[in-house]
Amino acid sequence: MRRIFIIAILVFLSSSVLYGQKTVENQIKKIYELALTQGKSYQWLDHLANRIGGRLSGSLNSELSIQWAEEQLLEMGYDQIWFQDVMVPKWVRGNYEYASFETQPGSSISVDVCALGGSIGTSIFGLEAPVVEVKSFEELENLGQQNVEGKFVFYNKPMPPERISPLDAYRATVQHRTQGAYRAAKLGAVGTIVRSLTMTQDDFPHTGNMSYQDLANRDRIPATAISTNGANLLSSMLKLNPDLVFYLKQNCKNYPEVLSHNIIVEVKGSEYPDQIIVFGGHLDSWDLGDGAHDDGAGVVQSMDVLHLFQLLDYKPKRTLRLVLWTNEENGLKGARTYAQEAREKDENHIFAIESDAGGFSPRGFTFEATDEQFEKLQSWQSYFYPYYADRFVRDGSSPDVVPLRNGTTVLAGLRPDLQRYFEFHHAANDTFDKVNKRELALGAATLASIVYLVDQFGI
Amino acid sequence: MRRIFIIAILVFLSSSVLYGQKTVENQIKKIYELALTQGKSYQWLDHLANRIGGRLSGSLNSELSIQWAEEQLLEMGYDQIWFQDVMVPKWVRGNYEYASFETQPGSSISVDVCALGGSIGTSIFGLEAPVVEVKSFEELENLGQQNVEGKFVFYNKPMPPERISPLDAYRATVQHRTQGAYRAAKLGAVGTIVRSLTMTQDDFPHTGNMSYQDLANRDRIPATAISTNGANLLSSMLKLNPDLVFYLKQNCKNYPEVLSHNIIVEVKGSEYPDQIIVFGGHLDSWDLGDGAHDDGAGVVQSMDVLHLFQLLDYKPKRTLRLVLWTNEENGLKGARTYAQEAREKDENHIFAIESDAGGFSPRGFTFEATDEQFEKLQSWQSYFYPYYADRFVRDGSSPDVVPLRNGTTVLAGLRPDLQRYFEFHHAANDTFDKVNKRELALGAATLASIVYLVDQFGI
Repeated sequence: MRRIFIIAILVFLSSSVLYGQKTVENQIKKIYELALTQGKSYQWLDHLANRIGGRLSGSLNSELSIQWAEEQLLEMGYDQIWFQDVMVPKWVRGNYEYASFETQPGSSISVDVCALGGSIGTSIFGLEAPVVEVKSFEELENLGQQNVEGKFVFYNKPMPPERISPLDAYRATVQHRTQGAYRAAKLGAVGTIVRSLTMTQDDFPHTGNMSYQDLANRDRIPATAISTNGANLLSSMLKLNPDLVFYLKQNCKNYPEVLSHNIIVEVKGSEYPDQIIVFGGHLDSWDLGDGAHDDGAGVVQSMDVLHLFQLLDYKPKRTLRLVLWTNEENGLKGARTYAQEAREKDENHIFAIESDAGGFSPRGFTFEATDEQFEKLQSWQSYFYPYYADRFVRDGSSPDVVPLRNGTTVLAGLRPDLQRYFEFHHAANDTFDKVNKRELALGAATLASIVYLVDQFGI
Repeated sequence: MRRIFIIAILVFLSSSVLYGQKTVENQIKKIYELALTQGKSYQWLDHLANRIGGRLSGSLNSELSIQWAEEQLLEMGYDQIWFQDVMVPKWVRGNYEYASFETQPGSSISVDVCALGGSIGTSIFGLEAPVVEVKSFEELENLGQQNVEGKFVFYNKPMPPERISPLDAYRATVQHRTQGAYRAAKLGAVGTIVRSLTMTQDDFPHTGNMSYQDLANRDRIPATAISTNGANLLSSMLKLNPDLVFYLKQNCKNYPEVLSHNIIVEVKGSEYPDQIIVFGGHLDSWDLGDGAHDDGAGVVQSMDVLHLFQLLDYKPKRTLRLVLWTNEENGLKGARTYAQEAREKDENHIFAIESDAGGFSPRGFTFEATDEQFEKLQSWQSYFYPYYADRFVRDGSSPDVVPLRNGTTVLAGLRPDLQRYFEFHHAANDTFDKVNKRELALGAATLASIVYLVDQFGI
């Protein structure tokens, strides 16, 4: 009798677990189906990329995009939209950037370059100097001041193609873009030319942030990115003529900081309003393309999370907060301001996720979490199997959630397929037509589903 | 003492298992790295798609592509290239296909259409008739002869967007293309218009095979595909004017069968030469685009398997056979001929895999296998984890290996990400620029790795 009783209890318990699991599965299935049939990501991205376009923080377009996001959120019925003031750097590309070098006496060829974000310009006459090519900082240091002084340093290390993850390959080379000018200037270089961070051979130069760190203004040197085709050509010509003279002219400029904003929308939780779940993307982008993948995709997917929950008439238990950060690309001031205010108010963020790796087919997530937290997250992995998005890895997070790191908040990133990402990253071809509607929608659904799970079950 | 001995043996055994596993892991790592750095898939595809282009079996381009493949294989050092004679249908699109309908009295609009493969043409005056729109065969049957006779049947069922796998969505609607004309003709229709099988809204009509089955020649009716934009427009106009008259003119034509060929290269196994492992793709494609994804990708990836093994100086234990089939698109005669000859010679095929789902990021494989075989396959799944290609599913196989089905041969397909595939499938935009070099190379490596595993360990 007792045994039967125990069995009955076990059957009851396991069926209720199964029932719960089934409910969750069904809810997630609905999220994906709604995203694919009624999601708004694609039409929103069409506007953001095609009507507004590139929107570097501090620019007019950045302000237009913030206004646009507000309008969309108001239209969705959120009348409590919170603007968070953020002072951001104002860097302007200027109206020319041009580079060329002699291929034979009397004949020169121009190559595609773009100033790195934060770089100073050249004089209006441009800058002419010989070139020294290096593949690493070690090689640069070994060359020493006597071989570098008065020259352009040409960082020509390709992203290593044998890496399976293009992000790993990016991390292995990005230091030349971020620190290259600083290091070269210390040795007396007059400028830097950095091979574009893409694994594709083409004519698009890829911009991105750089920093002069503690260099005095008078010691700063112009930094430019050259397309991979341009880099290969320059490298070949240097082998033929090591004394080749490179000419660079760009009139980008840094101005005093200006006011920008994060946009925040909050939906109060019914059971645990003090537990905050953040999801978002960064509304700013580089100026060359339309910021479709980086990070228009993340912005519209995050907005779509709210839209999908509205369609489901879903009332969260915990407090959901959509954050559209400003200034991710050249300062991270938006993310820092958000995190600082959260600390000052002693807010309890349990989970923060950003979508900032392009609008491609989702493959899963990256998490920064304790072992215990990660174990709980992994128990949800199978829910993502039907959607090919069940790759859960522990890895560094998306930039805008990193300032929230405190050892207890779980930080996460949506992780899409990355093979094509760097083809468009920070370049003029990061445009709407490179985004596939279904892939974008599946990413929105994946984001919504993890938010739903954290909301339901905590962490 | 005895215990120590047993422990020593266990340590030895487990370390040798670990050693074996490590060797396999390293070999697969090498395959992927070589594919990404020295793979030939992309440059081969450039030639096949851009220099040769669309290559419907029975056409001059099809012959040119067979010649080209032979040249490449000869250049790789294979002097024993086996051509297998295959009689294939010869269908020619002709030099015009045109459709239009009246939008208001005196004003008409043309829409993008393309004849379905195998369809007859209209008279040189074209064909004018009213249109009846249906979403299913059931709806068609319910309408009955009185509502269908003398009309175009317009199959306007979209691929269901809520399906996660576009292949499932394709399978749910493809019958309108393949059997639509047959069913409509039985009810007295004069022609059929089929909504293109893509989930994208655009102006590309997508062709594909259709069959009149046992219909007498005199009862056959022209079948055409209309772009999704065209289908939506036609459907809207039909709501405004159910009596709208549709005009279709196409001069495609069926000719007597002609000779084509499968191409086969064999590398004899050193230990089990009687066990044959087949891998390949189909060299024919539709005529509208350049057959870059379908199935140029599969062809060059399969050729690359041999190339990668050469780079590794890998000597197979079992017999490897590269097969480039002809006539997959409109008859499957190549695959049937290959399988029939294999049966006649009583060959022992242990494994046959085709890559025929586009050159996108690989996600894993589909297998047709017994439970026991699938268990063994699954024991290899973790080898593919680092490459994001560890999704092993039991599903129908790629078309060209299906005729080898005998209950013991494992049939398989390379399964890439499919979200973008039907955007290009059988349409004029299936061109080289839609293929990403790294994604294509990763597919080749995935294919090579499964062939390597089957060769090493049997099945």
